[in-house]
Amino acid sequence: MALRIALAQIDTCVGDLDGNSQAVLDWSQRAAEAGADLVVFPEMTLTGYPIEDLALRASFRRGAERALERTAAELEARGLGGLAVLVGTVGDTAVREHDGAPARPTNQAVLLQHGQVVRRYDKHHLPNYGVFDEFRIFAPGDDICVLDVRGHRVGVVICEDIWQDGGPVSEMDQNEIALLVVLNGSPFEEGKGHIRTELAARRARQVDAPVAYVNMVGGQDDLVFDGGSFIVGADGTLLARAPQFVEHLLVWDLDDSRAPRTGEIAPHLDPDEEVYRALVTGLSGYARKNGFRSVVLGLSGGIDSALVAAISADALGGEHVVGVSMPSRYSSEHSKDDAADLAKRIGADYRVQPIGTIVDAFDAQLGLEGVAAENLQARVRGMILMGLSNAEGHLVLATGNKSELAVGYSTIYGDAVGGYAPLKDVDKSRVWALSRWRNNAAIDAGQIPPIPESSITKPPSAELRPGQTDQDSLPPYDLLDEVLDAYVEHAEGRAELLARGYDPEVVDKVLSLVDRAEWKRRQYPLGPKVTALAFGRDRRLPITTRWREP
Amino acid sequence: MALRIALAQIDTCVGDLDGNSQAVLDWSQRAAEAGADLVVFPEMTLTGYPIEDLALRASFRRGAERALERTAAELEARGLGGLAVLVGTVGDTAVREHDGAPARPTNQAVLLQHGQVVRRYDKHHLPNYGVFDEFRIFAPGDDICVLDVRGHRVGVVICEDIWQDGGPVSEMDQNEIALLVVLNGSPFEEGKGHIRTELAARRARQVDAPVAYVNMVGGQDDLVFDGGSFIVGADGTLLARAPQFVEHLLVWDLDDSRAPRTGEIAPHLDPDEEVYRALVTGLSGYARKNGFRSVVLGLSGGIDSALVAAISADALGGEHVVGVSMPSRYSSEHSKDDAADLAKRIGADYRVQPIGTIVDAFDAQLGLEGVAAENLQARVRGMILMGLSNAEGHLVLATGNKSELAVGYSTIYGDAVGGYAPLKDVDKSRVWALSRWRNNAAIDAGQIPPIPESSITKPPSAELRPGQTDQDSLPPYDLLDEVLDAYVEHAEGRAELLARGYDPEVVDKVLSLVDRAEWKRRQYPLGPKVTALAFGRDRRLPITTRWREP
Repeated sequence: MALRIALAQIDTCVGDLDGNSQAVLDWSQRAAEAGADLVVFPEMTLTGYPIEDLALRASFRRGAERALERTAAELEARGLGGLAVLVGTVGDTAVREHDGAPARPTNQAVLLQHGQVVRRYDKHHLPNYGVFDEFRIFAPGDDICVLDVRGHRVGVVICEDIWQDGGPVSEMDQNEIALLVVLNGSPFEEGKGHIRTELAARRARQVDAPVAYVNMVGGQDDLVFDGGSFIVGADGTLLARAPQFVEHLLVWDLDDSRAPRTGEIAPHLDPDEEVYRALVTGLSGYARKNGFRSVVLGLSGGIDSALVAAISADALGGEHVVGVSMPSRYSSEHSKDDAADLAKRIGADYRVQPIGTIVDAFDAQLGLEGVAAENLQARVRGMILMGLSNAEGHLVLATGNKSELAVGYSTIYGDAVGGYAPLKDVDKSRVWALSRWRNNAAIDAGQIPPIPESSITKPPSAELRPGQTDQDSLPPYDLLDEVLDAYVEHAEGRAELLARGYDPEVVDKVLSLVDRAEWKRRQYPLGPKVTALAFGRDRRLPITTRWREP
Repeated sequence: MALRIALAQIDTCVGDLDGNSQAVLDWSQRAAEAGADLVVFPEMTLTGYPIEDLALRASFRRGAERALERTAAELEARGLGGLAVLVGTVGDTAVREHDGAPARPTNQAVLLQHGQVVRRYDKHHLPNYGVFDEFRIFAPGDDICVLDVRGHRVGVVICEDIWQDGGPVSEMDQNEIALLVVLNGSPFEEGKGHIRTELAARRARQVDAPVAYVNMVGGQDDLVFDGGSFIVGADGTLLARAPQFVEHLLVWDLDDSRAPRTGEIAPHLDPDEEVYRALVTGLSGYARKNGFRSVVLGLSGGIDSALVAAISADALGGEHVVGVSMPSRYSSEHSKDDAADLAKRIGADYRVQPIGTIVDAFDAQLGLEGVAAENLQARVRGMILMGLSNAEGHLVLATGNKSELAVGYSTIYGDAVGGYAPLKDVDKSRVWALSRWRNNAAIDAGQIPPIPESSITKPPSAELRPGQTDQDSLPPYDLLDEVLDAYVEHAEGRAELLARGYDPEVVDKVLSLVDRAEWKRRQYPLGPKVTALAFGRDRRLPITTRWREP
């Protein structure tokens, strides 16, 4: 008899036990209506993911356990007791390695059926690199889990369990399972979709059974989850795939004959569209889960703030975007015009707050010059945005891009002010590419392009002194972004960069700017700490370091 | 033949390979002059500790390896080749668990002798809780290390290796070692000295040999290391102890007769003195290692800024402290007088910058009211301090204490501005206790007490509106601090707090304030991120959490 499987690609919220439980009930109902025998939810469904140090709080674990039991009982009460429901949660027990270390629970997959908790599986491999800190908060499991679902042997593992050779999957290949299901909380990175399917294909061949991979979707804190759940056959062929960036129920039949049966296969997105939608998903999730309905940001007329405004309008609706033009004596007319034009295109609440009088008051008292005076202008703008946020409740967005932040072309407590920085992990070259993509997408759809053409084409300037442009102090952005990618993202050293043929002067300039900015960032809470995407990982460096690339 | 052992309790600097190497040479020279056969340095001597993601950078590891080889050669060149020198460093090879994860090196102890790297030991147990993130950046070792030093069998382990039962020490108890040496980077926590000696005594009895425990000293980034290196005999008796908070060479003889020979035993410090000296050590190390000679802070006349100023004067000298009084219309006369009095007592560079004109300029343009207007005053003060820092190069100190920060009684981008927050982990009750201790210590020494008596005795107020005091919005500090300690430091839940008899109204108020402040802190870079002491560990919570204590 065939087994009908439903992968419930849902958007959970960290800590919202009741809301997540409700989502499990609703999507189980939909799975049952679709005739499913088994519905699989993403990693840590009930608790949300990642829960970080909440895992170490006993009262939270007790709450999660109660929510699990209530969910099982409520499924039964709704007549869904026959459905096998596989959900993720935090384990109900915690072990302490020694005095002084905290007691760590497990990261668990739980089978609910007939109103009961039927089976628990504890994740073996706990990633503790990049954006992951799981070994810090969880203890590893060491048993494998093979369920019997209507006579089919179904192996269960969680996320990182399939990334490492050995481990639970290698024990399962002797178990003649009919299907391997994987619960995931796999954050978005560019091009990761292909890596996930190739990895799943390898595991499918290893266990000689199809692999069903369910991923969560939505923005959570500083991460974006893209969904894109899928099923590969025992030979590694892609048989079904859910779309990215939306909640979705992917239904597929496991046939007794083991003949690969193909389901819906959502198309891959264009790379720029994929990143743009990740940015929109990240911001809308962050705002909604933190209780913000609106955002406020400074509109300079430049490309960064224009792109952030377009993303905000797509995430929250233009009417929930407050754009503030804060011109100084150094602001050009075209900048002010472009800011007003942008606001009109996206339907934002547009305001003008010149900073001259306030800057003059500071100036009269402190008499600052040079960089201190330039920083002052940026800080007055940050204070205006924070004042509007405090008074009206908007989330402040910082508009700086990754290239600027990496080299410290940004003012602490100035333009770095904000609770969320959509472009923190988007370099300047990509800012232009995404802006062009968004405008073209509008044109293709017969809509007005959100971003004024001149914001895209003009030379970038901070306009903190007369005639200033970014290239007065920085290498051209295409070159800068290449060197940054190698040095920051791939941890290449000076020797490797020179061996690749980059000009030593450029390399030394960029490295010293980055090291200085890293130091400043650690020294001051330059913020925002929130990063929109996992693909640009923060380095964790000590604050004081006298190490310089030789 | 007896073996003379020297424990070199030194202050290293993260990333300063040349400086740390020089310190190894200098202190080895001193050890040789004291007749030592073996000198033991703290954990990760050459690289400094903790190096965080520098461990993942291949060019840094190559640099450390070259520094290690140079150090060995230079010891030989100085005629110290016969001395056995045990130093810590980062391993020279790194292993990658799977694609996508970074290659991790080991945390290593290395024996240098006769110009060579003679032996390497890789730390087994990698703490990844509290302030530690070692499993994230290091791979564990699995071999034990027993050296032969002039015919004595000397076991070597590193820090966390002795905290866990099992592991390398349990393998050594069959090895009939004559001495166990432990290289440590053990951050200061109140009362930890006793825990360390008890633990070492247990391991000594386990291996039936003395244990020599060498710890680093000094402020590094957000940690303070207190030194306090010591030796216990095979029966667990304390035989020698170095003083805390200073570099020191502790010399001790291992006798063939195994008779316990007692060396110098530095006395324990009074608890308030211990914490005060930790604060001074943290600030002076942070400033020096980051290249600051002076600090700037706002002097309100209140107790927090007074204590920070006193600590700063003790750390850097009063002449390197810039104290800025920034009165508003709500500042009382006694506040201004107390600020001036304090500055005079510690010999600070005292300045007055009234904020009225600037606040009026903001007010005229934005017309903010209520909390938004209160925040504005704090932010103008933050901007003035940052302006002075940018113009004159001082490190900005934030003066908020742990109680205030925990409940969010602080303004983002306002009084939270700063690169270092000496009191971030000191609750308000302790602020008073430390102030009294510091004044009494001055009186005992026949000096002028640094802190004006009225700053200690008057009711605390933020003076952001007329007649405001902290207790308008907060429970009494002694009660608040007890509840905070249970809820934040010990992760107790609401149920546990009620069971201990606290008033439900107080508990609910404090919990909701803390949860709100935690959320705000994660949402905004409220900072400073720098914490002075390890004893107040940051919780790492997700930004978005709808979990509330039931």
